[in-house]
Amino acid sequence: MKAMVLEQFNAPLAWQDVPEPQIGPRDVLIKVAANGLCATDLKITGGLVPTVPLPHIPGHEAAGEVVEVGAEVPGLEPGDHVTVYPTEGCGYCDYCRKGFENYCVTAPRTGFEINGGFSQFMRVSGRNAVKISPEVPWEEAAIIPDAMASVYHALTQKAKVQAGETVVIIGIGGLGIHAMQMARLMGARVIAADVVPDKLQGAEQFKPDVIVNSRTESLPERVKELTNGLGADVVVEGVGGEAVAEILPDSLACLKLGGRLVILGYNYGIPLAVDTADLIYGQWSILGTRASTLQDVVDVVNLVEQGRLKPVVSELYPLEQVEQALARLREAPPLGRIVLQSGE
Amino acid sequence: MKAMVLEQFNAPLAWQDVPEPQIGPRDVLIKVAANGLCATDLKITGGLVPTVPLPHIPGHEAAGEVVEVGAEVPGLEPGDHVTVYPTEGCGYCDYCRKGFENYCVTAPRTGFEINGGFSQFMRVSGRNAVKISPEVPWEEAAIIPDAMASVYHALTQKAKVQAGETVVIIGIGGLGIHAMQMARLMGARVIAADVVPDKLQGAEQFKPDVIVNSRTESLPERVKELTNGLGADVVVEGVGGEAVAEILPDSLACLKLGGRLVILGYNYGIPLAVDTADLIYGQWSILGTRASTLQDVVDVVNLVEQGRLKPVVSELYPLEQVEQALARLREAPPLGRIVLQSGE
Amino acid sequence: MKAMVLEQFNAPLAWQDVPEPQIGPRDVLIKVAANGLCATDLKITGGLVPTVPLPHIPGHEAAGEVVEVGAEVPGLEPGDHVTVYPTEGCGYCDYCRKGFENYCVTAPRTGFEINGGFSQFMRVSGRNAVKISPEVPWEEAAIIPDAMASVYHALTQKAKVQAGETVVIIGIGGLGIHAMQMARLMGARVIAADVVPDKLQGAEQFKPDVIVNSRTESLPERVKELTNGLGADVVVEGVGGEAVAEILPDSLACLKLGGRLVILGYNYGIPLAVDTADLIYGQWSILGTRASTLQDVVDVVNLVEQGRLKPVVSELYPLEQVEQALARLREAPPLGRIVLQSGE
Amino acid sequence: MKAMVLEQFNAPLAWQDVPEPQIGPRDVLIKVAANGLCATDLKITGGLVPTVPLPHIPGHEAAGEVVEVGAEVPGLEPGDHVTVYPTEGCGYCDYCRKGFENYCVTAPRTGFEINGGFSQFMRVSGRNAVKISPEVPWEEAAIIPDAMASVYHALTQKAKVQAGETVVIIGIGGLGIHAMQMARLMGARVIAADVVPDKLQGAEQFKPDVIVNSRTESLPERVKELTNGLGADVVVEGVGGEAVAEILPDSLACLKLGGRLVILGYNYGIPLAVDTADLIYGQWSILGTRASTLQDVVDVVNLVEQGRLKPVVSELYPLEQVEQALARLREAPPLGRIVLQSGE
Repeated sequence: MKAMVLEQFNAPLAWQDVPEPQIGPRDVLIKVAANGLCATDLKITGGLVPTVPLPHIPGHEAAGEVVEVGAEVPGLEPGDHVTVYPTEGCGYCDYCRKGFENYCVTAPRTGFEINGGFSQFMRVSGRNAVKISPEVPWEEAAIIPDAMASVYHALTQKAKVQAGETVVIIGIGGLGIHAMQMARLMGARVIAADVVPDKLQGAEQFKPDVIVNSRTESLPERVKELTNGLGADVVVEGVGGEAVAEILPDSLACLKLGGRLVILGYNYGIPLAVDTADLIYGQWSILGTRASTLQDVVDVVNLVEQGRLKPVVSELYPLEQVEQALARLREAPPLGRIVLQSGE
Repeated sequence: MKAMVLEQFNAPLAWQDVPEPQIGPRDVLIKVAANGLCATDLKITGGLVPTVPLPHIPGHEAAGEVVEVGAEVPGLEPGDHVTVYPTEGCGYCDYCRKGFENYCVTAPRTGFEINGGFSQFMRVSGRNAVKISPEVPWEEAAIIPDAMASVYHALTQKAKVQAGETVVIIGIGGLGIHAMQMARLMGARVIAADVVPDKLQGAEQFKPDVIVNSRTESLPERVKELTNGLGADVVVEGVGGEAVAEILPDSLACLKLGGRLVILGYNYGIPLAVDTADLIYGQWSILGTRASTLQDVVDVVNLVEQGRLKPVVSELYPLEQVEQALARLREAPPLGRIVLQSGE
Repeated sequence: MKAMVLEQFNAPLAWQDVPEPQIGPRDVLIKVAANGLCATDLKITGGLVPTVPLPHIPGHEAAGEVVEVGAEVPGLEPGDHVTVYPTEGCGYCDYCRKGFENYCVTAPRTGFEINGGFSQFMRVSGRNAVKISPEVPWEEAAIIPDAMASVYHALTQKAKVQAGETVVIIGIGGLGIHAMQMARLMGARVIAADVVPDKLQGAEQFKPDVIVNSRTESLPERVKELTNGLGADVVVEGVGGEAVAEILPDSLACLKLGGRLVILGYNYGIPLAVDTADLIYGQWSILGTRASTLQDVVDVVNLVEQGRLKPVVSELYPLEQVEQALARLREAPPLGRIVLQSGE
Repeated sequence: MKAMVLEQFNAPLAWQDVPEPQIGPRDVLIKVAANGLCATDLKITGGLVPTVPLPHIPGHEAAGEVVEVGAEVPGLEPGDHVTVYPTEGCGYCDYCRKGFENYCVTAPRTGFEINGGFSQFMRVSGRNAVKISPEVPWEEAAIIPDAMASVYHALTQKAKVQAGETVVIIGIGGLGIHAMQMARLMGARVIAADVVPDKLQGAEQFKPDVIVNSRTESLPERVKELTNGLGADVVVEGVGGEAVAEILPDSLACLKLGGRLVILGYNYGIPLAVDTADLIYGQWSILGTRASTLQDVVDVVNLVEQGRLKPVVSELYPLEQVEQALARLREAPPLGRIVLQSGE
């Protein structure tokens, strides 16, 4: 079969012949239909993720059709549409036993430590192949386990957003546009903030209660105004990259007494700094969050099937044009996800 | 009546005649028996708490005997022993309505914005006068609402410690010695750390599972050893003052994946700094906490009465020797609380 | 002033001259604008609530305009619109300290143990007078603290409904139509059931995902079909009265393994009976719930002001026609609340 | 190898030669050392558990030494001591994904649907073989996953017992004596009740705060006395069998307003009946609970290794005398577990 192979870091991926993967009794073989592209793919191809081996087939946001099912895998059959949860939890640690595969320290991840979806076929653990209605388009299915479920985890398991709360979402991008939908779904009042006019405009379709250009006005002041001077119950920082440094002080300043700050976007070497007196007098909670559980993916799939959440895909490229897609992502990422489509 | 009055910041308190306080229909009048002394009293007498008026009677950890009961106060009568919860919540804000008086922004506090217990008699809201068995000595009763209930709030409401968890307590002082007892009471395994040999030795009577001298060995390494390499579920930072700066990096380094760091000790201007990548990959929660609810005080009183928690008082001074007591606190604070006793 | 006075149980209320109420420093005086009418009013006038004194002015779902404010009440002034939380919690018990006034055993309730809103003016505790935007019509404001907040308490504090869960609401009446809205607001999938064709039709405007006539088809079978054979996460029994007896077995049978049944509707002497083996093998939780906290009322007021919840009022009567309104309620209650309007 | 085989229901088990079990790559082979005996074994041998096949080797509370480890099983090696969690969860349902194997509807259980520990060797899933220190005696290790972890699950996951709460434990038997220890460990005040003088006396060693003979005095009255008239936060009904019918009304009557009743003991056909008015006015929660998660077993193993919980074994029999042991269990069960020891 053919795959887009990373042979050297910082070099273009190459469309090569590689052997078709073999599956074990607890695996399934998938004919890949689509792959979401994520900022982490820039780090992977750039050699910044030290656990990635070479040669490597990236792709950690894949969806496709089941073509072969291992003998011990229940509930799946050839022809089923599935989206792939990338973390293959060991099943034997405290975290896995409690259903927190995203905390498992030995789990290899599809598209990271093991081969991913930039290929015609891929092997995944049957447990990680989450069935999804054929009515959900491939490009939407592909981005559920990462771009959506990570945010769902942050809001439900970490921030534990409650109906009626005010949630500020900073950064209207791949994370923020899904955070907006989910916070609304959970009954919250949503204030969305960004500094890029196109993104501010793009946010409107997801119906946040308020949209704030945090370049032209003070976000903390605006949030206080909108909350009788109290501040927000929850702030979701979904910016990431170097811009994080700039946004963190304002993120804290938006919080009410007892408020919760969820850190979804990060950058190596950029610290969050908070005065210990402010932390205590503010009674704040600062919550780091990464990825999601397998069950979170199943839950989001159900909500997408019910039409209550909508995966947001902005641009499509054929898989063979992955280099152009990566360049687009590097230079001017669109509002929603870029998805790579596999041809016939 | 007589009281120890603060007429000027940074000047000695003076034993003066002052008018006896009047009580309203929802208040009680208390003949003060004892006052705990807390590091915050150094800030108050030093003029570092901007909301303290002059002249002022300090004392925010008071206990005494009820001598007069307002007409609308149920459940109390003259002769009852009470300990005083210092925060007189407004009762009308979201926080007060949910029972979080310690978040109320307009609540005056006994010994801060209103007169405290360094006097023969004091007025307190009937709601804030928590009845306690006469079998609990005055000096122990006095320190429950601050030195104990604040820690109880941190462990039960913020860290939500569960049986079987490993809790690291950094700082064996007025907060730490009560944190040890409470974490044990909740079924946790307790690792206590400090750098002062006397305190390390003093900790033994509170039966932590492990005591670590974090000057002579690496606390994070020791914690990892004791937890199969995983780290602690909960770290309680109870140091405060300028030493906080030094202890924070180790506090973070003791945490397991998904661990919770509770910040009880603080210092103005000293930041907690955490790399955003560490925060996310560690899936950490950092939780600021301050004071307690009124119900926390009632709960701790019940546990003290049942003999399951023990208020730790190290030294007693007559109220008239408050200056010597403050000097002791400033220079070499003992393991447990210093308490000022009121004479006959 | 004039009031509708209950002089004898089971006799018509009489429009009489009564003295205007006096307020204390922590009270407000309200010019009553509207009163919701609730099935409990039938019990009160019928002498079935043993704590109701005679003569008595009923009315526990009142809203009106503030005309006088006690000296110690912050945040309210004449002209403000308020809706009345009926339970005047003692403030001194464990429950009140934690913000659960609806558990306070000594709290007198407006319209029960103390006079209610069937009069031109009424006194209420300032704390219980919850300010509401003048944009919310009086009849809608009036029913928030009982018909809405009780359901909100059941779903948020007891059932703790999560986004994505399936919630079955049995009984499309004053409770059920608000439960539907709230469960949707919280992100749940809603299945609404009743046996009365008019109510089934009326339910449509509240957009449950599925409406089931439980007379013409088996509700448990239908729920299983809609949930891949698993059953519902939450069942809300909101029927009450003698019909409860009939609906309870089906309510249990709709539950999934680990499901939660919330009992909102009840009848004296009608038991819920569940086989202990079923309870254990089903891992079910059965949750009784009554009334709401004061903060729940504030939360629902905010959600109504934001337009995210809609109080459902079906019929209006002048206060003077309370007997006709009670007859209507007794014989054929409409879908939403009946509200009594006070004239000028 | 030899095993105690059930060839016909209601007939004695026979010590027979049977083939040694084969293990797959995710299994381990265990040389059995001990088996706890549980009332359910009477139901199994009596043909009352319809999913048990014939011939069958019972034994669902087994511990032993690992003798062979499947190629894909991490963390175990020959010579390790393990105790066996009996439920082999499918790993593919919502419940398993969240770590609630005890809710999995397709999981075969060791000693129920698949062969158990009444044999020289047994196969178990590697995931279900929980390593335990050799310092824990075999007979104690054997009873952790059922007699202890089920109770742990009930108290931690269902009742969510908090420090300072009052917990009434009804039934001082195999469940109750572990419930007492655990509730104490979690910081609760414990009231233990039974009607059998020997059991009341036996309870003393587990240090409940109060022991009540509920035949000679009214348990609800006593509980009210001990709780200022309020009642208990939590009641744990651990009686089971036909005596359940008698104890349920008192179990409810012990609850405080808002109290939680956990049903651990049950009997087919015996209902819990609660007046719907009492349920609502009492704001009670009634919680069915069965078995435990795999992680609960790991947690209890840790607590036993730390010496904070003690498995209570009362009598030992050689495996070959299982019939005598079953007779003892049927006629006059001792306070703690009966354990069958395997010879060399």
